Amino acid sequence: MQIALDAMGGDYAPGPIVAGAVEAVADDPNLRVLLVGDQAQIEKCLADCGASGDRLEIFHCSQAVTMEESPVEALRRKPDNSISRCWQLLAQKKVEAIVSAGNTGAMVAGGLFLRRFLKNVKRPGIAAVMPSPKGPTVLLDVGANVAPKPEHLFQYGVMGSIFARHVLQRNNPTIGLMNVGSEEAKGNELAKETHALFNSSPLRQRFIGNVEGRDILRGAADVVVCDGFVGNVVLKTCEGAFEFAMQMAFHEVTNALDAERDKGKKALETLIQRHHYSAYGGAPLLGIDGICIICHGSSDNRAIRNALRVAAQQATSHVNELIVQELEAVALPSAAD
Amino acid sequence: MQIALDAMGGDYAPGPIVAGAVEAVADDPNLRVLLVGDQAQIEKCLADCGASGDRLEIFHCSQAVTMEESPVEALRRKPDNSISRCWQLLAQKKVEAIVSAGNTGAMVAGGLFLRRFLKNVKRPGIAAVMPSPKGPTVLLDVGANVAPKPEHLFQYGVMGSIFARHVLQRNNPTIGLMNVGSEEAKGNELAKETHALFNSSPLRQRFIGNVEGRDILRGAADVVVCDGFVGNVVLKTCEGAFEFAMQMAFHEVTNALDAERDKGKKALETLIQRHHYSAYGGAPLLGIDGICIICHGSSDNRAIRNALRVAAQQATSHVNELIVQELEAVALPSAAD
Repeated sequence: MQIALDAMGGDYAPGPIVAGAVEAVADDPNLRVLLVGDQAQIEKCLADCGASGDRLEIFHCSQAVTMEESPVEALRRKPDNSISRCWQLLAQKKVEAIVSAGNTGAMVAGGLFLRRFLKNVKRPGIAAVMPSPKGPTVLLDVGANVAPKPEHLFQYGVMGSIFARHVLQRNNPTIGLMNVGSEEAKGNELAKETHALFNSSPLRQRFIGNVEGRDILRGAADVVVCDGFVGNVVLKTCEGAFEFAMQMAFHEVTNALDAERDKGKKALETLIQRHHYSAYGGAPLLGIDGICIICHGSSDNRAIRNALRVAAQQATSHVNELIVQELEAVALPSAAD
Repeated sequence: MQIALDAMGGDYAPGPIVAGAVEAVADDPNLRVLLVGDQAQIEKCLADCGASGDRLEIFHCSQAVTMEESPVEALRRKPDNSISRCWQLLAQKKVEAIVSAGNTGAMVAGGLFLRRFLKNVKRPGIAAVMPSPKGPTVLLDVGANVAPKPEHLFQYGVMGSIFARHVLQRNNPTIGLMNVGSEEAKGNELAKETHALFNSSPLRQRFIGNVEGRDILRGAADVVVCDGFVGNVVLKTCEGAFEFAMQMAFHEVTNALDAERDKGKKALETLIQRHHYSAYGGAPLLGIDGICIICHGSSDNRAIRNALRVAAQQATSHVNELIVQELEAVALPSAAD
């Protein structure tokens, strides 16, 4: 299993990115990581980690896309950037997967440029795994496609279901449509048309209709589809709401307790760590030929280590072959891009 | 101060709705509430509360819109419904404010039908007050307008700022645009055009640009504008995320503590109550001539009591006069509906 890792991508790159790779190869004896980026900087980071370099190779490139740059422009202006190099390595089948905590728009644009879509896929979507009391829920798209068509959301339902079943081990996953109310006639045009599309499709048995914002973390559906603008806002809102809730809980519990204050603090700290984004290991861009994991911009070594683990796991689950088969099986006669 | 309260609106109506009104008039000696709905049912509820009926009148109507009905259809098919009656009482200036926990779409449609907009207002928007460590943030629209134009969002910025300043006492409120990243070029067409509109307007000094989902509960801006689909999903996602976080915190803290378990539980219960939607008292529909407060469908007596308090407070703050003046002052030359 060979994975290309964008060593230059992320708010704190390359330090924690390289450190995460060092940890990941230590975890998994079958993993080889190609560190894509500036050779001198990466070598320094490897030396800082005291890494032997075993199963860690460097693929030098001279440029990097920053977090602030306009994706399309940056990819054009910087042909030797680490994101494009990762995609080229994937296209040339030199690696099975690519992982980046860099500019999300540039990661997605890199894939769109090379048009490395799986057969029948209209548009790839980023799938985020969200916690719920009933187990993990897949939310997609969370930012690849901010102006989707109903058929894109339909395909996200297909791809998300396969990911839920074969990577997250959810049996017979249900699909919900993110909307502003439970009734069929609710929502904007995209929501109404997508609702009708699911209900007239071979997926209608698994389609449970609309779900609302409050339902996601309740586990109302195993897969929730939405446009990439809404999904991105939801994902980040959850992050902010959890952070805010935990800050307040910490404050209240600390104030209320005396003798057992440290116990209370420790319990909440454990909880915060468990649901920190770095525990989830990034979000797969589903629908591309290969595996692409997009990580949080603030990724630390733990996040990168988990992302590399998730990438390896996805490779062995044959999700892509199953996506191609299922999209073939549920193809809509009126399909239009 | 006379307020019409939709006694038939809400998941548990009319019991807790009437009980909330009884409590609200007990709180405020200047408040009179007109209970709009089925006379027999309301009388029974008043008797159950042991209410004297002082400053509580009944305005009988024979129909009610259910939570599941299609708003426009229901308003047409049921001319004697409590929501339409509330709006008519407002239009006839028989009340200064209306409050409902019923079908949100029907409440908004009732206002659109009568076209009781303030001068220069293109479309009303629902403003939700969200907590943050820096104080309350106004998020709008959260569900009145799921397909807005850039100018609608611009006006939401104006209206939300006035609400923030004169009802929430925020000095020099800043305005942020909900988006998927902080860079100007991010987002869908609506977000890009709205960004440009703010930056070329007299509000540009107060416009801080894009804010992301995680920034809302951090208090990054005093007012955050977005389309009603996104805002509704964000509001409900916060509700769900807070509920989920508190469930887990409760579980972890309860398990970790021994002698001080009850203290820990009590601290979290207090926190849950403080941020429960019922403490916020509903969300104003800004931009209409009069005051309209839309409450959570699951409203209990506490929520209704607080909503009536908020309505009375808004009436004394002259928000509407200020909205008319400010919209005049910042009018965009290219304004189109």
